[in-house]
Amino acid sequence: MLQHFKREDDKLDRTARKEEILRLRDKLVNQQQAVLAAKLPVIVLVEGWDSAGKGNLINELICEMDPRFYSVAVFDRTHERDERFPFLQKFFQQLPENGKFLFMDTGWMEDTVTKYLRREITAEEYDRRVESCGVFERQLRDNGYVVIKLFLHISRKEQLRRISALWENRDTAWRVTEDDLWQQREYDRFLKTYDKFMETAAETAPWHVLDAESRKKSLLDALRAITLAVDRALEKGRYVGKASGREFPLLGGPSLKSADLTAAIDPAEYKTELKRLQKKLAVLHNQIYRKRIPVVICYEGWDAAGKGGNIRRLAYPLDPRGFDVIPISSPTPGELARHYLWRFWTRLPRSGHVAIFDRTWYGRVMVERIEGFCSQDDWKRAYGEINEFEKELTDFGAVVLKFWIHIDPDTQLERFEARQNTPEKQWKITEEDWRNREKWPAYEQAVEEMLLKTSTEYAPWHIIESVDKKYARIRTLQIVTDALERAVSENVVRGMKSLWTEK
Amino acid sequence: MLQHFKREDDKLDRTARKEEILRLRDKLVNQQQAVLAAKLPVIVLVEGWDSAGKGNLINELICEMDPRFYSVAVFDRTHERDERFPFLQKFFQQLPENGKFLFMDTGWMEDTVTKYLRREITAEEYDRRVESCGVFERQLRDNGYVVIKLFLHISRKEQLRRISALWENRDTAWRVTEDDLWQQREYDRFLKTYDKFMETAAETAPWHVLDAESRKKSLLDALRAITLAVDRALEKGRYVGKASGREFPLLGGPSLKSADLTAAIDPAEYKTELKRLQKKLAVLHNQIYRKRIPVVICYEGWDAAGKGGNIRRLAYPLDPRGFDVIPISSPTPGELARHYLWRFWTRLPRSGHVAIFDRTWYGRVMVERIEGFCSQDDWKRAYGEINEFEKELTDFGAVVLKFWIHIDPDTQLERFEARQNTPEKQWKITEEDWRNREKWPAYEQAVEEMLLKTSTEYAPWHIIESVDKKYARIRTLQIVTDALERAVSENVVRGMKSLWTEK
Repeated sequence: MLQHFKREDDKLDRTARKEEILRLRDKLVNQQQAVLAAKLPVIVLVEGWDSAGKGNLINELICEMDPRFYSVAVFDRTHERDERFPFLQKFFQQLPENGKFLFMDTGWMEDTVTKYLRREITAEEYDRRVESCGVFERQLRDNGYVVIKLFLHISRKEQLRRISALWENRDTAWRVTEDDLWQQREYDRFLKTYDKFMETAAETAPWHVLDAESRKKSLLDALRAITLAVDRALEKGRYVGKASGREFPLLGGPSLKSADLTAAIDPAEYKTELKRLQKKLAVLHNQIYRKRIPVVICYEGWDAAGKGGNIRRLAYPLDPRGFDVIPISSPTPGELARHYLWRFWTRLPRSGHVAIFDRTWYGRVMVERIEGFCSQDDWKRAYGEINEFEKELTDFGAVVLKFWIHIDPDTQLERFEARQNTPEKQWKITEEDWRNREKWPAYEQAVEEMLLKTSTEYAPWHIIESVDKKYARIRTLQIVTDALERAVSENVVRGMKSLWTEK
Repeated sequence: MLQHFKREDDKLDRTARKEEILRLRDKLVNQQQAVLAAKLPVIVLVEGWDSAGKGNLINELICEMDPRFYSVAVFDRTHERDERFPFLQKFFQQLPENGKFLFMDTGWMEDTVTKYLRREITAEEYDRRVESCGVFERQLRDNGYVVIKLFLHISRKEQLRRISALWENRDTAWRVTEDDLWQQREYDRFLKTYDKFMETAAETAPWHVLDAESRKKSLLDALRAITLAVDRALEKGRYVGKASGREFPLLGGPSLKSADLTAAIDPAEYKTELKRLQKKLAVLHNQIYRKRIPVVICYEGWDAAGKGGNIRRLAYPLDPRGFDVIPISSPTPGELARHYLWRFWTRLPRSGHVAIFDRTWYGRVMVERIEGFCSQDDWKRAYGEINEFEKELTDFGAVVLKFWIHIDPDTQLERFEARQNTPEKQWKITEEDWRNREKWPAYEQAVEEMLLKTSTEYAPWHIIESVDKKYARIRTLQIVTDALERAVSENVVRGMKSLWTEK
């Protein structure tokens, strides 16, 4: 697109252009209200060359807008050195609430292209990230986000002219960075790479290349692109995507039916094993910390299956400076108003840390499915989206472990009744628990489907038989220590390699 | 306290101690429910020597607790180099919600003492920070927080023994840091400084010095201190503090009565002045960015006084990479469940950035006072707390500007009616606006009291006459550019000096 870009003269004269800008700015201000009423989230991604005027364009776009209903996110290349999360995390984190606009001063394009051209990531990792960007954009669209992608284009000559102008003025010389000069030198390589990148998710959301050599013209074109896209989205209503049909390396199980709920452990053996495994885990925690491996441990299971006690035994030997237990309950309004994975993306462990999720993103295909909190398209699409999410984590080098803490209905009843009859435990049992219990068959079906569709080679499910809670604790500890041992002993952790061997 | 610390033998034998630990741990678990029901926020601050076992103690305390109702905050000295906010910000940010526990692995004591002994801050700045810590603790208590302060004490010899043990083991040697060795060398200086620091806020919340040479004994003593403090707080109910009586350098005004609402500007002059001042502001924005001066601009005023348009003219020339407009509306449940300044502490501008607050913390002494959303003690105490908050900001080097955008009731009525009669502006006017209008006299009284009690030398109020909105815009631009010019031209920005001249 860029290589064959031709500057075209607008038919408008100066006055007409000015009037058109004022008209569209007004329109954008009014669209804010309509967008709010329709609960549409709108993302305006502004990419482009250094010195092309990205910041200025954003300012001209927002200058009449109501700040209650938009935000601006700036991704400054120079501050992004610290790669403690999967690269998409920083973009996910900024997602706007339904009804609001987000303007992004560069985003996943600049981040990906620059790291590649700087040789901070390998060619293989670059390809992987380009693919992830496509997945990200598809997920945004499918979850109702309106994404408008603008690219501010200037020629090499014009860029040089602008850099020189900054450089020659004593007050602005400091703004010229090494990065600017480097891009100017490497303009042609950037041009080709930008061009190629623009093929990503081109059907999901097309690029608008703006002629940034004229500020007014690019502003007008940006206003046109945005107001048109918003108008269309308002007309059609919020988009709900279907499942993408992408295939994953599924393991085809496990199934609840295969669980042996009589599994038990001798109390004396339990005591010895618990101590042994906890000690081992403490050592491994140190090692993953030093090797900067992030660890994500997911707990799902029936009410009263013993998740809490299981988690506590697992967490006990961990250094509190390096782990978090993250209890997941019903989403807050702010969480509900965003991509359903947002509240998990923003709670990922930093590399070298452990996050233990007490309930997880699988709520989408269990409680939200069964209670009708999301549409059928939503939960059917979620299996693939979740597989993509977990792939992003493991590609980054994370260990992802998923436990289904399993009991039978009779055991649950016993435990519910025991809670009811013990004064200091009564708070643990609510009306909702009894209601959920009545839906056991529906949940069972949902769980089986989940196990089938999200047990992947890179993030398999483990069913943990927990009629004997002690047995269950030892099992999870075993699986966790085994997995960490493997991760630590591997010389190369995949996703990290791309970052760390070359630095 | 530390210099005269004597190890004392507990009367308990090993078995009795173990049983007592189990009993108190159980008690702590049950207190979680009571604390939740009473909506008490509880902070357990764990300070102490390197290698004294702070992390371990926290782990032993939390191991049976329900992770839904506590969190752990770790302040790692080595990661705190980047001083972009007032030093208390990082502690404020972690404040727990009502009903929850927060365990802190070091806090404001270690942060302050270490920076001082490292000569990262001057002696003068150290004294200032010690005072701020006292203010912080008082504010926490007065706002209902239960703060339990523990110090894990070990002798110099014991510390050496522990460091050596780590060092001699191949797996743990990496955990010995330069900082540990430095503290060991400088043990005596630390001892004296810790001791002196412990006099801070001693009446507000006393320190518990624990004998950390014995893990079990210090665990037991920690459990005793925590459960006792929580029991007492549960018994007495949530504490509500009175105004502290501290004096501030008040300016004694301005008063609304002194405002000349006929003030106006000629439209042609407005146009020229607006351009000139906006251009000037753009240049100044660059300079404060380079000098790393944080800027906080507060907007308050009558409904329909023209805050929004005023803010937009001010924001227009700013580089979007360096400012945020922060609209403040009614607090979310998470905000409501914390210190009322929490949502402002967590939205401060980084040094070099500008934050424009559209409504502010002054809601406490206006809408919250008038609508009875807080108690009389709460809003009466707030004047002083707000003065302290703003002092912390300006001591750090921030420019704090406060505008009251002023009109008379007739002008408001005109504007309300105009909004009502313009279809695309109707959303701007609500039933609530009409209700607030009826309370004009009550608000007027509250505003006058606010202007009187919070107009300080370091953060004065400006009344901006806004019957002529154009006049008002020019006035704020003038005040802002003047203030930034002064800040930029001063060779030394107070609070920053302490940090930056020595680095």
